[in-house]
Amino acid sequence: MFDPNCPSRQVLDRIGDRWSVLVVLTLAAGTLRHGEIAARIGGITPKMLTQTLRALERDGLVARTVYAEVPPRVEYALTELGHDLVGLTRQLERWAEAHMPDVEAARAAYDARVTASSR
Amino acid sequence: MFDPNCPSRQVLDRIGDRWSVLVVLTLAAGTLRHGEIAARIGGITPKMLTQTLRALERDGLVARTVYAEVPPRVEYALTELGHDLVGLTRQLERWAEAHMPDVEAARAAYDARVTASSR
Repeated sequence: MFDPNCPSRQVLDRIGDRWSVLVVLTLAAGTLRHGEIAARIGGITPKMLTQTLRALERDGLVARTVYAEVPPRVEYALTELGHDLVGLTRQLERWAEAHMPDVEAARAAYDARVTASSR
Repeated sequence: MFDPNCPSRQVLDRIGDRWSVLVVLTLAAGTLRHGEIAARIGGITPKMLTQTLRALERDGLVARTVYAEVPPRVEYALTELGHDLVGLTRQLERWAEAHMPDVEAARAAYDARVTASSR
């Protein structure tokens, strides 16, 4: 895990990525198009979403289906492996929500210390 | 969580970061100095480690202690909040290790498809 060439480290690079976590959580509810995912995740640029979806597809977590319509319709859904990751991403989400007040208090204290010591 | 201004999203930005996860896992074993952490985590630059430690300290996950020696000795340890996160980071580690073969197979299949379609 601590070796950058180890495959499990590369898997961590994917699941330890804020956009990947948010895309997996968004797709947990069902199949969506690019624009629908972008609308649900605040602050993600279309380019970053495209890169994240491509990386998730390459890692086998997301399936991309192209429908031969004019213009072509492209839909994204979690694969079985992607669904398997949902539980863990929900735990990350819950931890973040539960400990948000602690983190906010720590940040305020840190920033006050830094401000005081730079006077 | 899906709003970039929501504090829980900012907490996710911290715990959903590969370097943060690896630093938390490294410090789970005990107090360490900067160089000792760097030596345990392959591929992290000293600058990136400094930035990660500072962000973890600001978020209240890591405590930094400076000993008034010459030269000053600086040690890093997990706080109580940081220890609370260890269980979840170990689950991430275990998921990455368990599903590594699936992800590697998916990558090989994806790369073969991309190569075939670009011929």
